Amino acid sequence: MKKNQNILIVGAGLCGSLLALRMAQQGFQITLIEKRPDIRKVTLDAGRSINLALSNRGLRSLRLAGLEKEAKKLLIPMTGRMIHEKSSGKTFLSPYSGREDEFINSVSRPGLNKLLLNEVDKLPNVSTIFNHECIAVDFEHTTATFREFDTNRESVFQADAIFGTDGAGSAVRSSMIHDPSFLFNISHQWLSHGYKELEILADENDSYKIFKNALHIWPRGEYMLIALPNLDGSFTVTLFLPHKGEPYSFETLTSKEAIENFFSKEFPDVLELIPNLTQQFYENPIGTLGTIKCSPWHHSGNVLIMGDAAHAMVPFYAQGMNSSFEDVAEFIDILEKHKDKLGKGENGWDLIFDEFQEKRIKNAEAICDLSLDNFEEMKAHTGLPIFQEKRKLEIAFESEFPSEYNSKYSLVTFRDNIPYFDALQKGRAQDTAILNMIYNNELPNSLSLEEKLSLVNNRTQEILNEEGLDYLKYSDTDF
Amino acid sequence: MKKNQNILIVGAGLCGSLLALRMAQQGFQITLIEKRPDIRKVTLDAGRSINLALSNRGLRSLRLAGLEKEAKKLLIPMTGRMIHEKSSGKTFLSPYSGREDEFINSVSRPGLNKLLLNEVDKLPNVSTIFNHECIAVDFEHTTATFREFDTNRESVFQADAIFGTDGAGSAVRSSMIHDPSFLFNISHQWLSHGYKELEILADENDSYKIFKNALHIWPRGEYMLIALPNLDGSFTVTLFLPHKGEPYSFETLTSKEAIENFFSKEFPDVLELIPNLTQQFYENPIGTLGTIKCSPWHHSGNVLIMGDAAHAMVPFYAQGMNSSFEDVAEFIDILEKHKDKLGKGENGWDLIFDEFQEKRIKNAEAICDLSLDNFEEMKAHTGLPIFQEKRKLEIAFESEFPSEYNSKYSLVTFRDNIPYFDALQKGRAQDTAILNMIYNNELPNSLSLEEKLSLVNNRTQEILNEEGLDYLKYSDTDF
Repeated sequence: MKKNQNILIVGAGLCGSLLALRMAQQGFQITLIEKRPDIRKVTLDAGRSINLALSNRGLRSLRLAGLEKEAKKLLIPMTGRMIHEKSSGKTFLSPYSGREDEFINSVSRPGLNKLLLNEVDKLPNVSTIFNHECIAVDFEHTTATFREFDTNRESVFQADAIFGTDGAGSAVRSSMIHDPSFLFNISHQWLSHGYKELEILADENDSYKIFKNALHIWPRGEYMLIALPNLDGSFTVTLFLPHKGEPYSFETLTSKEAIENFFSKEFPDVLELIPNLTQQFYENPIGTLGTIKCSPWHHSGNVLIMGDAAHAMVPFYAQGMNSSFEDVAEFIDILEKHKDKLGKGENGWDLIFDEFQEKRIKNAEAICDLSLDNFEEMKAHTGLPIFQEKRKLEIAFESEFPSEYNSKYSLVTFRDNIPYFDALQKGRAQDTAILNMIYNNELPNSLSLEEKLSLVNNRTQEILNEEGLDYLKYSDTDF
Repeated sequence: MKKNQNILIVGAGLCGSLLALRMAQQGFQITLIEKRPDIRKVTLDAGRSINLALSNRGLRSLRLAGLEKEAKKLLIPMTGRMIHEKSSGKTFLSPYSGREDEFINSVSRPGLNKLLLNEVDKLPNVSTIFNHECIAVDFEHTTATFREFDTNRESVFQADAIFGTDGAGSAVRSSMIHDPSFLFNISHQWLSHGYKELEILADENDSYKIFKNALHIWPRGEYMLIALPNLDGSFTVTLFLPHKGEPYSFETLTSKEAIENFFSKEFPDVLELIPNLTQQFYENPIGTLGTIKCSPWHHSGNVLIMGDAAHAMVPFYAQGMNSSFEDVAEFIDILEKHKDKLGKGENGWDLIFDEFQEKRIKNAEAICDLSLDNFEEMKAHTGLPIFQEKRKLEIAFESEFPSEYNSKYSLVTFRDNIPYFDALQKGRAQDTAILNMIYNNELPNSLSLEEKLSLVNNRTQEILNEEGLDYLKYSDTDF
């Protein structure tokens, strides 16, 4: 490796900070530049996605950075979905897995980001710069221009390779879009639903007002509420609601009466848990959600985007952070393999970026699609008897045959050795198989659990095989 | 209708000119503004898609504007694909339809545009302005800002409704993308292949060097050449080639030797038809091709995009102009239905734009997808025996049972009463059915043509019905 390779990382959020840490651990000279102020020195805006769910793929990446132990201090395990039924007013816990050691973890986004930045600061070969916004990238000369907030002064940074980890609104990606030689493919689809964050405070003893170790869901078809626990005894609540339309949307819920009527009809228990509901509703902004897929992720080996900049997704599989962390782990694997090709005159970065993109884009697109699947599942299906029957069966399979069955949820969330693309294909086929078989009464109670598993596995395989022959594949007849 | 509704149309290409004409015929006050100079007063750049194929959908729209007769003077019928085989060096004609009166028509883009602009000029209620580039649209106040080329002076136009017919690189669409309240969904996918135009000149007697009344295709798998006839005896030839990669791409074909070797290996007859091939190759630009789908097409009834601005497609079904003309016809239908709701204080434009978008977006997306299908078909499938057998059978069906069978090509190109979306669904199912049945030898010659047709129709229907039940549709159980 050519000594003193200079690396510029644009964006010091979760993905950029972890990437800086891992690359610095490899001996690269890193400059990490962030648009916003240092998160360790400011208070955050209210109502902007402050907690996340960390699961196996993300944890593995933190482990590889030597941070698993420290990170675990920030986590609150959530073992399943606590479903709040509308008609009965009752709750029931739907576990995420039939295996006891499998759960997801609520974590504070700023808390985790601070941990990563503190680790970065311990290394001598990273310099971190805040309050500098990237305004343009020059792909030919591998430079990026930044504007400092306080002074409005512009400065240009040159590097051997530039990484864009600047999130869903990526400036690096914008530069790619506007470079005509790039032929940059992009799909940006907004969700019809927006969100608003609310808060359930701890009770007078600083305890949790509702069950701590679950992700709470109030599924109501076209809208839903979820709640994740925080370390201080509070819960961050998120209302997902259509932007427009009847009967309930952010467009129609504007008066105090409308908001209170909506909550008392749909989420009466939440009205009691949040005494100042309408105040919070008015004060917090409406967030938008969307999916961004794009390609290519790099330009002849000088600039690469990763994380949300390369694949923004809706939050419903809680894999945004996890997939970004997995990006970093997979990138470092590939980097280590080809590190010796970074000498002068060699096209090592081109090779590394190509291999990364080749391996990663299809998995990124898969988790984007899976996240949209899970929106349907969370807001609507979790309330349906046939879905609940399916989940019971899957939990039983996982509990009795832990090495032989993984639900779609488990494939995505807990099997970090299985790529998202494979999880999508297997998971969707499995879901179709089980739902069909329950609907057609092909899994009667006269069968043993083992027999049911065998039938489900066979049907799943049939569905996977069904992809027909393509009779129009090129033959060697004429060309 | 409120008198003197002022309409601003941005873009005086084929779609904008026809829209201006039709709306002026309805009595609206039109301002038609175009970025480029008046096409009637300038000579055109060489090598930029100068001819197109006009077929039934487009012709119907011209008929409704009273222009069919004039337009027909500009057309050269093409009755089928003239396939130039590589191995044998032979050609054979594959007709577009088994019905004798069905063909497509080569037409000069500037010729047709001039005809439309001349018609527009005959009406007193249209003013046409050239050399004014749209630089921004204000969706709240229904204004658009333009910059004049010569003077760089900016001016603002206000209207009751604005139409963006400014093509694939639409400035009106850009304003929609950059308006954050819009939640504008967009997908922009570039084709891996670019194109280069070449020209086969007329012979010394001003006659056509190859058969006049066909669209010539040299299908070669990953690349192809096509040629369309012009009125002056020449052919416009287009080479489609990957931008990058081995063995042949625009990246690798840079030397005279490489270009000549490529043509002599793949298209030896063309080398003879174009004596100054390498000169043309060097002088003409490389064009890019892509698909743009987006939604919504309007913003609360004041600004609407249509034509390429709303749905840019690759050229392989020759439906870009036809679909844009169909947009205009369908828009005018809806406009006539709701014209009385354009009074003051009524939201007539909102209603009209909503209905147009509701009806049209899914058809636009379908023809975008069909155009990509047809790229595979043209560059590769047309050279395959199984495909040729399928086409022979379809031509026989259409010839013997003209009212009972339409190939996918006929559904898209000749059946202007069938929406693109329906053509896509039926056409794809039919293609799958026939190819499966030929492959599995289920259509032996012992069967009569009528029996074969019945089997194909049944199998097609089965495929269309196969879309399974969705067991997770909302029930009334909980919400």
